[in-house]
Amino acid sequence: MLDECPGSNPVILATFEAGPNGNSNKTLLFYNHYDVQPPDPLEEWDSVPFDLTERDGKLFARGVADNKGDLMARLTAIEVLQNLAGGLPCNVKFIIEGEEEIGSPNLAYYLEKYKHLLQADACIWEHADRDEKDRVQLMAGVKGMAYMELTCESADMDLHSKLGAIVENAAWRLNHALSSMKNNENEILVEGFYDGIQPPTEIEKNYITKIPFDQEAIKELYGLRQPFIAENPNEALVLNPTMTICGFESGYYGEGSKTVLPKKAIAKLDCRLVPGQNPEHIFQCIQSHLIKNGYSDVKIKLLNSVGPYRSDLSHPFVSLMVRTAEEIYQTEVILSPNNAGTGPMADFGNLLQIPIVSTGVGWVNSRLHAPNESIRISDYVEGIAHIAHIIREFAR
Amino acid sequence: MLDECPGSNPVILATFEAGPNGNSNKTLLFYNHYDVQPPDPLEEWDSVPFDLTERDGKLFARGVADNKGDLMARLTAIEVLQNLAGGLPCNVKFIIEGEEEIGSPNLAYYLEKYKHLLQADACIWEHADRDEKDRVQLMAGVKGMAYMELTCESADMDLHSKLGAIVENAAWRLNHALSSMKNNENEILVEGFYDGIQPPTEIEKNYITKIPFDQEAIKELYGLRQPFIAENPNEALVLNPTMTICGFESGYYGEGSKTVLPKKAIAKLDCRLVPGQNPEHIFQCIQSHLIKNGYSDVKIKLLNSVGPYRSDLSHPFVSLMVRTAEEIYQTEVILSPNNAGTGPMADFGNLLQIPIVSTGVGWVNSRLHAPNESIRISDYVEGIAHIAHIIREFAR
Repeated sequence: MLDECPGSNPVILATFEAGPNGNSNKTLLFYNHYDVQPPDPLEEWDSVPFDLTERDGKLFARGVADNKGDLMARLTAIEVLQNLAGGLPCNVKFIIEGEEEIGSPNLAYYLEKYKHLLQADACIWEHADRDEKDRVQLMAGVKGMAYMELTCESADMDLHSKLGAIVENAAWRLNHALSSMKNNENEILVEGFYDGIQPPTEIEKNYITKIPFDQEAIKELYGLRQPFIAENPNEALVLNPTMTICGFESGYYGEGSKTVLPKKAIAKLDCRLVPGQNPEHIFQCIQSHLIKNGYSDVKIKLLNSVGPYRSDLSHPFVSLMVRTAEEIYQTEVILSPNNAGTGPMADFGNLLQIPIVSTGVGWVNSRLHAPNESIRISDYVEGIAHIAHIIREFAR
Repeated sequence: MLDECPGSNPVILATFEAGPNGNSNKTLLFYNHYDVQPPDPLEEWDSVPFDLTERDGKLFARGVADNKGDLMARLTAIEVLQNLAGGLPCNVKFIIEGEEEIGSPNLAYYLEKYKHLLQADACIWEHADRDEKDRVQLMAGVKGMAYMELTCESADMDLHSKLGAIVENAAWRLNHALSSMKNNENEILVEGFYDGIQPPTEIEKNYITKIPFDQEAIKELYGLRQPFIAENPNEALVLNPTMTICGFESGYYGEGSKTVLPKKAIAKLDCRLVPGQNPEHIFQCIQSHLIKNGYSDVKIKLLNSVGPYRSDLSHPFVSLMVRTAEEIYQTEVILSPNNAGTGPMADFGNLLQIPIVSTGVGWVNSRLHAPNESIRISDYVEGIAHIAHIIREFAR
């Protein structure tokens, strides 16, 4: 465990040296995290979120897919290789943090302080899922994120709703403020939001074209009620920045009716960002938008910010990751230039200047961040084999 | 207690006959209710909501102002008059229901069935408050109400917010649907909403002009953060229909951040209506608006509906109410053609064809429907005297 940055969750650094027959000039770095999302809504779980439960060939628990299954598969692969004659074929390092789900606010402190201990030639990122047709997915980047809380207060107390004829209503104010930021065709209307976005390179476009996307299977899996909002969903997941209302609360919303005019409204807003965008700049754009559009009573707070990242796809480590996966899984392997999700990859990538690719033991219905999170035991076992194979090929 | 309409809360009818020296040709009807609003949010109460608590010359409890204080004051006045030589000076009837706060859905059943028992010459309505300068307020009508629940479901489960690039979001859908119904200048954009509104008569306008409204006092009392949304608040409270978001809930809104894309959003919407508007018609207009504007995925349910009502202000009973109040309270008395609030007055008014005026023991900070609801003991005592005086003058 590294010396703590005050107030942060501990960060763990583990190093495994190459065995006597190994190549001690090469080092592979793994990034994982041990924190998880909150388990609510609890009533939608079929088993206790923090009791690992086996059912139908799967393991269910909060965090089993995101990201403890991957961490255990990797440690198991290390153990297997260590027990072989000659031990590990190269050096291996692990950095395991505990604040990924809140945007890794203190990771940069550790990376800067312990940069000399982290030197490596390539990095394997925390997690990946198989897709709806069980194809293996690898990712060479992440989207960034600006996660914000918006609050509007209109009065000291909830009022009788008869006062709606004369009094401003926090729920209406926040509703209109949000509607001014994105229209009902999903165009983000905040000035400066799309500025500086890097157009995809030819090699990136080429990889994106090969990403399959079975619209009908995904719609059925999630029970989607509406058509997709993007013409090319596979491209949109990689290239399009987002603005998502993650939550909204105001006034009375229980059973039946209560005629109140709410004193306060709160919203959580998550913007996923692509290379060229900067979360602090996006936050400032939204703040300016609110003021310029007459919503200075809507207060905004930046809760998390993470930069976007894409590896150089022409690096040989990227091909090695694809090839080893094809060999182990004997199925189609898809590489995405960046995940639609987020992680602190930019902190590593910019500091260490190495390619970073994510692989993992999730499946299409792993339900990350939702009730009944799971992995399949078969994926877990194959994941161990894949990691062991990567390490041996990487060491050559 | 009247024979029950199946599934409804009981309705109580009480009749008190004129004493030997009374005028048995005249009958005064009182309308009250014994149900109350839910007490939440409980943590904002300074005493237990359902333990009547005396503090600083006031009585605190859920329902003490709306409407049990009035009911007790009226019964006490009857008791006083009954104990005088000659007993009650005229016949008195009470109808007391238990579903006012949910829009009196079953009252029409009782009124129709027991119309013959309800015959009276005038009616005193449930409640009124003193205003911010302690002036006595009487009301000769009510606004109507259409209270609706809007629900949007976009998926079977909450999703990882990275899917915001491709998947519709119930919170955004409902947000945009609501914004399409009322703009940020508080103009209601639903076609047909304002149709048929009766312009005020000369006598109504005259009464409205005399209604005082101390903007600064009201702003301070409620801790309002924004200017009033109407140029003439006193006129707006009587004449303007409203569309109020009473509540909105979607996704995650607890401490910190959770990156979900909500599967469902729910809103409660309260429209207060004026004479000429009809709650069922308003509901249909909103339903059509949603479909016409591409929000057929937003489901809408009418939870309560009450019609608007205004008495004929030229009836002598209206003047009697004003005069007796001036005599008892020795202060300015204001008559409003209709309350900004709602009650099932239209059911009585249209059926019995009698003038209906409301008076009561509330004060400006009674906090109806909110935590720390209260009445002042001095208002309660004067309220008893006023009711007794009304009955004696009415019987002449």
